[in-house]
Amino acid sequence: MSFARQGFMKKLGVELCALGHGSCELSVPFDETLTQQHGFFHAGVAATLADNAAGYAGYSVMPEASTVLTTEFKINLLAPARGEAMRARAEVIKPGRTLVIVRSDVYCSADGEETHVATALVTTMCLLDKRDAPKSNSEGAST
Amino acid sequence: MSFARQGFMKKLGVELCALGHGSCELSVPFDETLTQQHGFFHAGVAATLADNAAGYAGYSVMPEASTVLTTEFKINLLAPARGEAMRARAEVIKPGRTLVIVRSDVYCSADGEETHVATALVTTMCLLDKRDAPKSNSEGAST
Amino acid sequence: MSFARQGFMKKLGVELCALGHGSCELSVPFDETLTQQHGFFHAGVAATLADNAAGYAGYSVMPEASTVLTTEFKINLLAPARGEAMRARAEVIKPGRTLVIVRSDVYCSADGEETHVATALVTTMCLLDKRDAPKSNSEGAST
Amino acid sequence: MSFARQGFMKKLGVELCALGHGSCELSVPFDETLTQQHGFFHAGVAATLADNAAGYAGYSVMPEASTVLTTEFKINLLAPARGEAMRARAEVIKPGRTLVIVRSDVYCSADGEETHVATALVTTMCLLDKRDAPKSNSEGAST
Repeated sequence: MSFARQGFMKKLGVELCALGHGSCELSVPFDETLTQQHGFFHAGVAATLADNAAGYAGYSVMPEASTVLTTEFKINLLAPARGEAMRARAEVIKPGRTLVIVRSDVYCSADGEETHVATALVTTMCLLDKRDAPKSNSEGAST
Repeated sequence: MSFARQGFMKKLGVELCALGHGSCELSVPFDETLTQQHGFFHAGVAATLADNAAGYAGYSVMPEASTVLTTEFKINLLAPARGEAMRARAEVIKPGRTLVIVRSDVYCSADGEETHVATALVTTMCLLDKRDAPKSNSEGAST
Repeated sequence: MSFARQGFMKKLGVELCALGHGSCELSVPFDETLTQQHGFFHAGVAATLADNAAGYAGYSVMPEASTVLTTEFKINLLAPARGEAMRARAEVIKPGRTLVIVRSDVYCSADGEETHVATALVTTMCLLDKRDAPKSNSEGAST
Repeated sequence: MSFARQGFMKKLGVELCALGHGSCELSVPFDETLTQQHGFFHAGVAATLADNAAGYAGYSVMPEASTVLTTEFKINLLAPARGEAMRARAEVIKPGRTLVIVRSDVYCSADGEETHVATALVTTMCLLDKRDAPKSNSEGAST
């Protein structure tokens, strides 16, 4: 699983909460280092979470001997992203052979309540004959 | 200037390179902590840079007694984001009174050559009667 | 109601099927004049339907003394748009005071089965102190 | 050339003005049947023009034994679309093997002046081993 090799996920403190056939959920706890000028989660964090959850949701319906990349996404920011944690839930809406279209929704939780703070549409692409993870004995020769 | 108060920019190591009337340029040096599973810049970094450059470009044409927020953006990832640094250049294409539409292009530089790695269209919104920066004597009471 | 005054809706043969608080459904029967080169509904028809349904869904939650306009939308085309009719169902996902964000899904029906052919995210904007429909005794003086 | 077989282009009165390697220009004269409720060009017409110009620009860099389809696009509407004619100019910004990314800008001309009324980012996809045009002796058997 390539999630552990994404330096950016580790830096942000993102956790993989759930991964199913066609779905994925990621979350990240609030931290001062993830904020914009008003002290809320930065839109870049919401976009990163939405995109990454979509990537793993998309990849979950692709063949094993493949890798995934995001070709484009669009995100609408719906409400201020304040709270103790941010969470993205992604779900495949069209599992094509080459392109897998994914919807990704982002929520913030504060005092036990969840607010829908962003929604995204993401196009992920399946690259065949490439691997998402390196072989066990050649970790350095990343694809 | 609110840039300095964005915790997320500091965490990523983003620098404000240029800010003009209707334009903004940001850059970030490569670091292992900004990568996806293949060792390139993560798409979330490209999105963050594109969005943030657009936000400051948009804000540069808004009245002083206002603040800016991104309401939505769309980004197309055009090429693998590898290189020593990533750079976003944003330019206002429609300075509306309420909505300011901005184009943001992202480049990676490697060995003295620049590659166009992403392009984004961003809608920024002007909120009047709010301030982007706190008053000098009340730094803690963020707006 | 301004729907009847949209020349483009009449030209395409679009019908208003349902209009609720925060939702709208439009449909158009298949016709040779609505096709692309392979004989399916043209993507422009899907986009028009998605956008227009979103506009009326958005307008349904705005004050009476206002008019609506679409500021931007993004649409993903999910499957070939073939069938006897095309239908768009729009639903408000964020009823802001100035911006109302709407999701719009497009379906084709053939032989009693519906296919999800497109999904769109639409930003509609409320313009206060303008009217969507002219006063009854001044039909020609369009706003 | 498949343009002539798009029923929707004929219905709208769209003309192919220019087609180069990686670029395409389409235009349509104003007509009452292309309007929204305020008498301007309908956003659906702008979207149709932007998408279609992008499709032909994208197709112009694809192999002959292929066909093209739009997988998604995003459009920002920048100004009221009023004038005697509407025009879309599309230009390829990334000619990938499978996906060709195109920027499409829409203008209205009135009294000799052009206004930039919309900008779009379009993802077109190359389908190999399919043909965009039917063989000469089987015009009716659309691909």
